[in-house]
Amino acid sequence: MLLDAAREAAAEAVGCRADELVFTPSGTRAVHSGVSGALAGRRRAGNHLIVSAVEHSSVLHAAETHEAGGGAVTRVPVDRTGAVDPAAYAGALRAGTALACLQSANHEVGTEQPVAEVGEACRAAGVPLLVDAAQSLAWGRVEGDWSLLTASAHKWGGPSGVGLLVVRKGTRFAPEGPADERESGRAPGFENLPAIVAAAASLRAVRAEAAEEAARLRELTERIRARVPALVPDVEVVGDPARRLPGVVTFSCLYVDGETLLHELDRAGFSVSSGSSCTSSTLTPSHVLKAMGVLTEGNVRVSLPPGTPAEDVERFLEVLPGTVAAVRERLGAPTATEAAPRTGDDLVVDALGRRCPVPVIELAKVIGDVPVGGTVRVLSDDEAARLDIPAWCEMRGQEYVGEAPTAAGTAYVVRRTS
Amino acid sequence: MLLDAAREAAAEAVGCRADELVFTPSGTRAVHSGVSGALAGRRRAGNHLIVSAVEHSSVLHAAETHEAGGGAVTRVPVDRTGAVDPAAYAGALRAGTALACLQSANHEVGTEQPVAEVGEACRAAGVPLLVDAAQSLAWGRVEGDWSLLTASAHKWGGPSGVGLLVVRKGTRFAPEGPADERESGRAPGFENLPAIVAAAASLRAVRAEAAEEAARLRELTERIRARVPALVPDVEVVGDPARRLPGVVTFSCLYVDGETLLHELDRAGFSVSSGSSCTSSTLTPSHVLKAMGVLTEGNVRVSLPPGTPAEDVERFLEVLPGTVAAVRERLGAPTATEAAPRTGDDLVVDALGRRCPVPVIELAKVIGDVPVGGTVRVLSDDEAARLDIPAWCEMRGQEYVGEAPTAAGTAYVVRRTS
Repeated sequence: MLLDAAREAAAEAVGCRADELVFTPSGTRAVHSGVSGALAGRRRAGNHLIVSAVEHSSVLHAAETHEAGGGAVTRVPVDRTGAVDPAAYAGALRAGTALACLQSANHEVGTEQPVAEVGEACRAAGVPLLVDAAQSLAWGRVEGDWSLLTASAHKWGGPSGVGLLVVRKGTRFAPEGPADERESGRAPGFENLPAIVAAAASLRAVRAEAAEEAARLRELTERIRARVPALVPDVEVVGDPARRLPGVVTFSCLYVDGETLLHELDRAGFSVSSGSSCTSSTLTPSHVLKAMGVLTEGNVRVSLPPGTPAEDVERFLEVLPGTVAAVRERLGAPTATEAAPRTGDDLVVDALGRRCPVPVIELAKVIGDVPVGGTVRVLSDDEAARLDIPAWCEMRGQEYVGEAPTAAGTAYVVRRTS
Repeated sequence: MLLDAAREAAAEAVGCRADELVFTPSGTRAVHSGVSGALAGRRRAGNHLIVSAVEHSSVLHAAETHEAGGGAVTRVPVDRTGAVDPAAYAGALRAGTALACLQSANHEVGTEQPVAEVGEACRAAGVPLLVDAAQSLAWGRVEGDWSLLTASAHKWGGPSGVGLLVVRKGTRFAPEGPADERESGRAPGFENLPAIVAAAASLRAVRAEAAEEAARLRELTERIRARVPALVPDVEVVGDPARRLPGVVTFSCLYVDGETLLHELDRAGFSVSSGSSCTSSTLTPSHVLKAMGVLTEGNVRVSLPPGTPAEDVERFLEVLPGTVAAVRERLGAPTATEAAPRTGDDLVVDALGRRCPVPVIELAKVIGDVPVGGTVRVLSDDEAARLDIPAWCEMRGQEYVGEAPTAAGTAYVVRRTS
C-alpha cells in the first residue's frame, strides 16, 4: 500500500499514469534500463540511437554500450549556450532510428533543451523520445510529447537509492537482463521501500514550493551571472542566460587552476563543482564544456539548493574576487595592466609537462612580445590546451591559427591581431 | 572515506580484500551482475552454466536469461533435505563450463549446501564458483574455495538497497551493460552512502553476537522441529535436521490450505511465510519444495530474527495446533480416527477445479473405501497435486502408481498398500 501510494504521488508529479512508472535503484539505473529496454523493444525498427553531445554520462555510457554491441549512435552537437538546435536534432532522425534521447536541462550549465520541439519531430517520425529529467523534475513536469522519462530522487533533495523510469503506454519496451516480478519486470531486486516513500514525499514537498522558490533562486543566480564578470576580470559566464534552471550558474576564470580555486572556496565555506580538467580523475575537461566550445579552465559551477539564503550568495560574491586574484598571483598570471616588450615576429612557448591553466598563462604573458601579425606557438601536451587556447583567442580577439603535432605534444599557433 | 571504511568492514566480514568487494543496489542486482560478468569474462572457456535447482529466484532468472541468449544451463537436483550431492554437482562440470553457482544455504528450508566440497571440485576443474551467501553471511564467512560471492544487507538486518558483490582477484570478469567509474565499474549509479554505511555497521554488529545468538536460535528452531510433529498430526518437517541455518524452520501440514493458515496465524500475531501454491501469485508451489519432492500443501516457514524471545516460540507452539485443526475442520479433512466402509476395488475422485489441498483431502477420505491392492484415481487440474499426492503417499505408506493425462486435467493413481 505504501508502494502504491508513493507510485501515485510520483506519477502525479511526472504527469503520467501510475502503471507507467517504476522505481529503480538510481537515476543511472533508470537511464540504463530505459535506453536498453527501448532499443530492444524497437529492434525491428533499426539500431540507430540519437543523443545530444551534452547528456549526462549515464546516457552517454548507455550509448557507448549500444555502439560496442554494433549499434549506430548520432551525437547531436550543441551551440555555445549548450542547447541543441531542434532542426539539427530533427535532421538526425532517419529510417532505422530506434530511440532518441534528450535531457530536459543540462546538469553542468543549467541550459534548458528544446524538448517540446524535439518531441514533436520525434512523434512525426514515429521515434520514441527518452527525456532525462533528472535536473528539472523538482521544478515541474516535462511538457511535450515524450515516450520515456527518467529521474533521480537525490537530485530533487530526496534520498539516495531511488530513480524513476516512466514508459508511456503504447511505447515498445523489452526489458533487458534478468527480471523478476517486481516493478512490472523493469527493475529487479528487493524494493527499497523506506527510500521510495521518502522520495515520493520529498518530491511532493519540493513541488509545493517550486514556483515561488524557482523565482527566488533565479533572481539569486541572475545576480551571480551579472556581477561575477563585473567583479572578476577575464571571466566567461556560460550557459543560456534565459532558458535555464533556476538554481545553477557556471562560469570559467582565465588563468586559474580549477582545483586550487575549488580548494580555496572550500576553505571559505563554499562547496562548488568544476568541469576543469584538473578537477577530473581522467584529467580531461568536462564533455559538456568541450561540446559547447567554451573556456574550461578555472571552471566553477554554483548550485543553489532550495532554501539557500540570499546572504550566502552575497558572501560568495564578496569572497570570490580575492580568491581568484590570489590563485592567479600564485600562478604568475598576467594582469590587465601588464605590457611586455616586443622582441620579435614569432615566439615559441614551451609549456610541455605543464598543466592547465599554465599554457594559457604563458601564452598571455608573451602575446605582447610579438608584433601585430606575428605568431606565438604554444607547445603543450595538456589536453585542455586544445580547448582553452582557442577559447582564450575568442575572449581576447586574437586569431587562433590552428594546431600541429610535434614530437612531444602539440603546437598551438596564435596570431596577434591587436 | 565513509565508503572506504564501509568497504573495509564488509570485506573483513566476508573474508576478502576491500578492492574485491563492491556495493550494489540490492542482492538481486549483485547476483545478476555477478553471473553476467563472470559468464562474459569466461566467454572463451564456453557458455555452460551450472546452478542448483533450489537457488534463489535471482540466480534462476539469471540462468534463464543466459539460456534465452543461447547459453546452456544444468540445474543440479537436490535430495529430500534440499541439499545437492557434491559428487553429482562435480559430475555436471565439463569442458565448456564457464561458471558454477551454489547458495551457501537455502532461503526456504534453511539447508546448508556442501559449498566447500563443491568449491574444491570447481577449483580442480578450473571453473569459478559463485556463492549466493545471502542467507548465511550474518552468521559467518563462507569457507572453501569460492571465486565470487553475493549477499544482501536486508537479509542480515541491515537496510534495503544494499547488496554485495565480491570478485576474487584472478577471477575473469567482464561487467555487462553500461558502466561508470563507480565501484570498480561493476555497479553504476550514485552510491547510496547512508544505506551502505548502515549496512556495514549492522553486519559488524550482527557478527559480534553471531556465535551466541546462533546457538540460542538453533535451540529454539530445534524445539519447533521436535514439537510440531508431536503437537500437530500429519505434519512433515522439511530440510536437513543438522546442516541448517540457525533461525529457519519449515514444515508442511497435510489437508491444510497454506493461505488460510497464514491468515489465521497472522491474526494470532505471527507473520510466517509459505511455499504453498495457494500463497503464490502464479498458483504454483515453491520451486524449492518441488525440487525436494516434499509435501507443498499447508507449508509454513518460520524465520526467527536475532533477538526473538523464547516466549514467542512457546506461544507459537501453543497456538499452532488449534489453528491447524480449525483450518482442517473447515475444509472437511479426514481425522486419524475416521474409518470409512469399503465398497469396491477401484475408485475415482473428481477434484477438477478444486485447489490444493482439496485433492489430497478427497484422496485421504476415500482411500479406506478401496481394499488393500485397490486403487484410487484422483482427477485434478491443480499443479500442486502433482507434488502433493506422491508426497502424501510417502507419508502414509501408500503406493503412488503414476499419473496420466485426461481430457480436463490429470489422473493421479494411488494403490492402497496397507
